[in-house]
Formats: sequence, C-alpha cells, structure tokens
Amino acid sequence: MTRIDDVARLAGVSTATVSRALRGLPTVSAATRRRVLAAAEQLDYEVSPSASRLAGGRTGTVAVVVPRITRWFFSTVVEAVEEYLHDSGYDLLLYNLGGREQVRQRVLRTANLHKRVDAIMLVATPLRPADLTALASLDLPGVTISSGSRVPRWPCVRIDDVAAARTATRHLLDLGHQRIAHISGDPDDELAFTTHLDRRRGYQAELRAAGLRPDPSLDVESTFTIDGGNRATAELLARGGPPPTAIVAACDEMAMGALTALRDAGLRVPQDVSVIGIDDHDLAGVLGLSTVTQPAAEQGRLAARILLDPLGARTLGPVVGQRGADGDTPVILPTRLVVRDSTAPPRAH
Amino acid sequence: MTRIDDVARLAGVSTATVSRALRGLPTVSAATRRRVLAAAEQLDYEVSPSASRLAGGRTGTVAVVVPRITRWFFSTVVEAVEEYLHDSGYDLLLYNLGGREQVRQRVLRTANLHKRVDAIMLVATPLRPADLTALASLDLPGVTISSGSRVPRWPCVRIDDVAAARTATRHLLDLGHQRIAHISGDPDDELAFTTHLDRRRGYQAELRAAGLRPDPSLDVESTFTIDGGNRATAELLARGGPPPTAIVAACDEMAMGALTALRDAGLRVPQDVSVIGIDDHDLAGVLGLSTVTQPAAEQGRLAARILLDPLGARTLGPVVGQRGADGDTPVILPTRLVVRDSTAPPRAH
Repeated sequence: MTRIDDVARLAGVSTATVSRALRGLPTVSAATRRRVLAAAEQLDYEVSPSASRLAGGRTGTVAVVVPRITRWFFSTVVEAVEEYLHDSGYDLLLYNLGGREQVRQRVLRTANLHKRVDAIMLVATPLRPADLTALASLDLPGVTISSGSRVPRWPCVRIDDVAAARTATRHLLDLGHQRIAHISGDPDDELAFTTHLDRRRGYQAELRAAGLRPDPSLDVESTFTIDGGNRATAELLARGGPPPTAIVAACDEMAMGALTALRDAGLRVPQDVSVIGIDDHDLAGVLGLSTVTQPAAEQGRLAARILLDPLGARTLGPVVGQRGADGDTPVILPTRLVVRDSTAPPRAH
Repeated sequence: MTRIDDVARLAGVSTATVSRALRGLPTVSAATRRRVLAAAEQLDYEVSPSASRLAGGRTGTVAVVVPRITRWFFSTVVEAVEEYLHDSGYDLLLYNLGGREQVRQRVLRTANLHKRVDAIMLVATPLRPADLTALASLDLPGVTISSGSRVPRWPCVRIDDVAAARTATRHLLDLGHQRIAHISGDPDDELAFTTHLDRRRGYQAELRAAGLRPDPSLDVESTFTIDGGNRATAELLARGGPPPTAIVAACDEMAMGALTALRDAGLRVPQDVSVIGIDDHDLAGVLGLSTVTQPAAEQGRLAARILLDPLGARTLGPVVGQRGADGDTPVILPTRLVVRDSTAPPRAH
C-alpha cells in the first residue's frame, strides 16, 4: 500500500506538506498542491477514512469537550490543542460540561455536533452506554484523552494513572514513611471520572508491594478539587488515632487543599506531614509541592495530531510511549517524580 | 403576540433594520436604534431566546478571543461565558492567542470570523488600528472585557483597574508601610495589554495621595505571570539599598512569583515583606495571599448577556456598577479588598 512518504518523495516535498496539501490548508501554494495531488493520484494513494473526512471537512471545526476549563489540566490541554488546530487551519468549538449533566447530554446525544464539526475530542468526559450509541451514530472521527472515556475505535491518549500513583507512594516509602494516607476523588463526582480509581489502585498496590496493608481509615474520598483536598484532609485529622506522616493526594489541586488544611491544623509540611500530588500544576513550584508530573500539553498536542494527521498512527513513532497497531490501544505518555519541599523523612526516622 | 413586522411598521423601518438594531449592529444609526427599541418596548415585543439580538444568526456560534486560556482570569471568564452561551443555545468558538501575533492577525483581520460566528467577544485582546478596521468591516455585534481593548460602539465590561491598585496600595499604607514596591507587566508584553498601566497609575496615585513620591527603584517591570513576578522580585532585591517592606503586585500570578522569590531569598512573608496582589485567583486562599478581588466570572456572564440580550442595556440595572445610555460607556464591576496572611505591619512599626 502506498504511504504518505512515497507521495512526499515523488512530489519532492515533506510528509507534513503532503498532509497539509491533501487537507487543503491555505499555507500550501497552489503549485505545490497540484504536484502533491498529481503524485497522490499517480501512486493511487488512499487517504484514510478519518483523513478524507477531515480533508473534505464541511466545517473546519473540531469540538473539544472538557469537564471544567478552569482546572489546570483541562486549560493546559485546551491551549495545546487550540494551537495545534489553528496551526492546521481548524477552529476549536469548546464544550465545558461544568458538572452539568444536562449539557453533557445535549452535547453528546443530539445531532448537534454532526452539523457543526468535522471531528471530536473528548477530554476525561464520562460516557454512558447511551452516549456511546449517540457518538457512533454521529459517524465522526474522534479521539479521547485520559483513561476511562474510551470510545470503541477512537484512539486514546493518556498517562498510566496506576503507575503515577505508585511512583508517588514509592517516593514516600523510600523516605521511610509507613502511615501513608490517600485523599482522592468521589466516585459520584462526574468530573473525577475513573482517574481517581486508577490512582487509588496504584497507591494500594505500592503499599502492598512494600508489605503494608492499605488502611481504610487513612483513605478519604472527597472531590477532585482544592476544596475537596482541604475537606478530605480535615476529615483525616479529625478521625483520631495517630495522624498519618504522609499524604498521597490524587491530584495536585487536592494536595494544595491538603496544605491549607494542615496549616490550619497547626501542622508543618514536611516536618510533621509530607504531601505529594500528581500532575505538576503550574503552581506546584510556587507551593514547593512534590509531585508526579504528567505532560498535559503534550497529551493535547498528540491527540490533536492523531485526529488531524491522516497517517498519524504511523508517523507518531518518536513521541509515543506505547501504542498498538489499531486505534484501540491507548497512547500512553510517561510520568516522572518531581521532588520539591513538601516531602521529607518522617520525624521519628 | 407581537411580531417583528409590527415593530418594523411602528418604527417605520424594515424588518431587517429591526433585526439589525436589536442585534446591536453598528450599521444602524443611534437614532434608528432608539426608535426601534422604543417601538419594541411599546408593543411589548418579546424577544425569544433564539430570536434575540442574534436573531438573524446564521451559525448559532459566538467567537471568544482570549490571550491565554491557561491563565486564571481567562479560564474563569470563558467558563462563565460558555455556560451562559450554552444555556442560550449558542456554541463557543475559542481563539486562544497564546502570544502569537500571527494568530491575532489571522483571527481579527481576515473575513474568517464573518462566516463562522454571529457575534464576537474580545477578552483583553490588544487591538491595533488595522484590527479595528477589520472588525468594523465584519459588521458583527461584539463586546469586550477588560480595559484597553475598546472597539467603537461595542459595549465593554471591566473593573476599574486604577481603583483596584489604589485599594491594594492603601491597605499597605494603612498597615504603616512606606517603602512599597510595585511589580508589573511589561509594556511590550501583548498579553498584559494596558491593564498593568492602569494598575501602576493607581499604585502611584495612592502613594501621592499619602504624600509619598513613587520611587522608580522600587518599580520593576516584568511579564504578567508567576515567572514574571519571580524575576521582578529577584531584581528588586538585587538592586541593593534597603529592601521594600511591602510589594504591590499587578496581579495575583505575579504576587505568587514574588512569594517564591522572597522565600528563595530567605525573607519571610509577611514578617519581612508584605505582598498583595489583584484578582483573587482561586489559589490565592491556599497561599494566604491578600488581594483585591475582581469578579471574573461575573464579567464573563455579564458580557455574554449584553451580547445576547437585545434589550440588555435596560434590564441590566441591578448587576451593573455604571453604564451609560450608549454602548460606549463601560460597565464597571466593583472590586474589594480581601486580607489574608501575606500582609502585616512592617517590622519596625
């Protein structure tokens, strides 16, 4: 089968130019476009379904659905996606669910999107069976970011949330902590989706790997927000018994809430309690928060590229951590421990 | 039920003109618009949600242009606008300039928007004369948020940036500070726009009102970001001479950078140096940052309402701080001092 590289070679241009020419982007000169089209025709180059869809796009627009644009992860993803889309000549239609079930249904279950966009990106969007049916009937190319919001046959870009939480927990174990608490998202909270479940699984798995038994009294559920972290930590301290010497927060925003609650309780970080998050929020540095960094912008860029690049699956080699041959295997980007001032050995150590 | 034809007949204009007048298009003279509004009111002409100002809307979409969606103010505004638009049946096309001049020009100076949206909202978007010409030729209703990005005949929603900075400075003066520094945005930084100039003006005015002369060695320019605040504060401390006992940061993100720089220099907040910002960023509470709060979401909601509601000017009474009869007088929302842990009397006091 002819590949984009073959077309590029024959036309004497880069594969990026071939892609742009075939998608009809204005940045390619008419002469170059003619040459690319001639080469594609000569080689009987077949553009993939998603590519042809976008190439013949009626709207020049991609829908991006996020749970809450004011949260660090989602605004960072959207900024990166917007840049990639605009550089490729596409506009971004933003749907911010904002915890409104009604909006979610309106966006996902009506034919609305079909008339408005050429493709869909779902970022950590909770999906029910009825949503999947509705999305399938739209017959539009799509991509998802974050674990959980999987749509059959749509590529998915995410991190390994279990591994991220294991890394955070391992850091505290390495420092000598044993009474390690976990504050996490509420399963009823639509925004948190399943991410927090994976992270809890990682926390528990790493404790077990160290020969420790996860203690339910050290595991508090709340919402995936600053305020949620604050409340969860206050509850943790109010439970009585010896307080934990360290806390793994399911995300940096919850960790920030923990810092506030600990300060309010007269406890010092890290002298009395160590705190680690997951994310690397852009204020984590200001707060001196140790965390496990996830590449939010990179996930957005990569998802946009997969959506727009007709042969994305083949050309993504260097940037992809792990990807299968079909769209069903997620692209998993790496995470990394960042140690700052909020973690230290326990005092008795 | 009154129909648009009735309004047209009474006002002595065409239905198209009624539609244009109700949509606030600049091509309708002020006199005609007044006549149409009077007729609409007299006949109790009820504008349905979908037949509102954007009655002739072809796209059901509003363009929202922001400098950088990852910054607190802009993501908060966009979330509020998106909610209002979606509740009114409109979609939001997001343009994130991201400091890219090329994008700014592409968005504002091409006919692109004309085909895609029914109205435009510019949030703190720097405008050059050529942009204004291009926007006028689009012939679409619009609204701006934040001082500076004014478009003739477009309503503008904002706070009084001079007053906000005066309030912050007054708080430090009241605590007994005299060596009060200012860290602010760079005039060459497109993102900061003129907001930082107004805030500097407020800082200086309040010092002068207290009989103090603004000291240029205590005024450092940087970028309107966490990192910018960090660098400005480091420079302030490196200048030698007695350090300031307090810092007014032009925004909370710069104040957060100041906190980091002071910590790195071994100075305690507020014992050694007080810090106050402007905004009330959603992490200001976590950091214990004193600030002057501005209603970001409210500015977004109000701007969306003005854009969609043809008779908005009359019905906005209760929520509006100050508004003139024509669109040229800005709607100014109030700000308020929030004292937390980052400000205290100077040590020698």
